[in-house]
Amino acid sequence: MDPNWIVGFVDGEGCFSVSFVRNKTTRFGYQIFVEFVLTQGEKSLNVLEKVNDFFGCGRVYRNTRHDNHRENLYRYCVRSINDLATKIVPFFNQYPLLTAKAQDFANFKIVVEMMTKREHLSQDGFEKIRIIAQNMNRQKVRVLNPSETNSQTAK
Amino acid sequence: MDPNWIVGFVDGEGCFSVSFVRNKTTRFGYQIFVEFVLTQGEKSLNVLEKVNDFFGCGRVYRNTRHDNHRENLYRYCVRSINDLATKIVPFFNQYPLLTAKAQDFANFKIVVEMMTKREHLSQDGFEKIRIIAQNMNRQKVRVLNPSETNSQTAK
Repeated sequence: MDPNWIVGFVDGEGCFSVSFVRNKTTRFGYQIFVEFVLTQGEKSLNVLEKVNDFFGCGRVYRNTRHDNHRENLYRYCVRSINDLATKIVPFFNQYPLLTAKAQDFANFKIVVEMMTKREHLSQDGFEKIRIIAQNMNRQKVRVLNPSETNSQTAK
Repeated sequence: MDPNWIVGFVDGEGCFSVSFVRNKTTRFGYQIFVEFVLTQGEKSLNVLEKVNDFFGCGRVYRNTRHDNHRENLYRYCVRSINDLATKIVPFFNQYPLLTAKAQDFANFKIVVEMMTKREHLSQDGFEKIRIIAQNMNRQKVRVLNPSETNSQTAK
C-alpha cells in the first residue's frame, strides 16, 4: 500500500476527531475521546483491512447505524493515545495532508501530544483542549452520549 | 502531485457518474451526461486547482447549492468525452482504484468508450448505457432536470 495513496484517501475521506463523552467518574465530568477514522461501505471493507495492516494498529468496526445507506458501513478507528502518538501522528508528519484536513490534523496532533503528557488532567489543559476541539471540523464541540461510543460492534 | 495521492483521493472522494438529462431535441428524448467529479469545500479549492493542472483538462466550478454546508463547495469536473477518453480513463487504467469505486470506474469506462464510438446514438447502444448506469453508484438511473446541469457557476 503506497503511503501517498493513504494520504490521498485520508484527504478525501478521513476524519481526525476530538469529542467529549459525559462521564461523571472523571475529574471534569467529561472524558476526552480522540479518534482517527476512515469509513467505507461493505464492498470496500478489504481496503480498510489493508489500511489496518499498513498502520499496524487500530481495528475495523461494523457500524450498526445504517441511516439511509444501502450497505453496512465499516469504520477503521485508532483510539489508543499511544498508537496515535507513535504511529498515526508520525506518519502524517512525514507525509503531509494536502487539503484543509491538514489543519484538523495539526489540532488533533496538539491534543494527542498534550494527552500523552497527561496535560488533559489539569484544569488548564482540559480547557485548552476544549477550545482546540471547538476550532476543529465541527466548529461546535461535539458532546457524545456514552452510548454513541458503543454504537458499533466489533467485526 | 503524486499519482498515488490522486488515486487515494478519488477512492475516498471521487465520483464517476452517468446521468440522463431530458432533452427533446435528442433522438431518444434524453441526453447522456458523463462526468468525473471531485468536490471540496472552499478551504481546499487550491487542491482542486492542482488536480485540474495535473490532468490538464476539465475545470473547477463553484456550486451554488449550499445545502447545509457552512462553506461554498467547489467541484472539479471533466465532462468532455474526448478528455475523459484520452486523459481520465487512461490514468485510472495505469493507476487502478483500490476501493469498490473501481467497479464504478469500469462501468464508466465502458460508457465513455461507447460514446467515443458514437454507439449511444443507436437504440441498442442507448439501452445498453441505460442498463450500465442502473448498475452504477446510485443503483437507480439518475435523471436530471436540465436546470441541474447548470446549477453551478464558473469560478
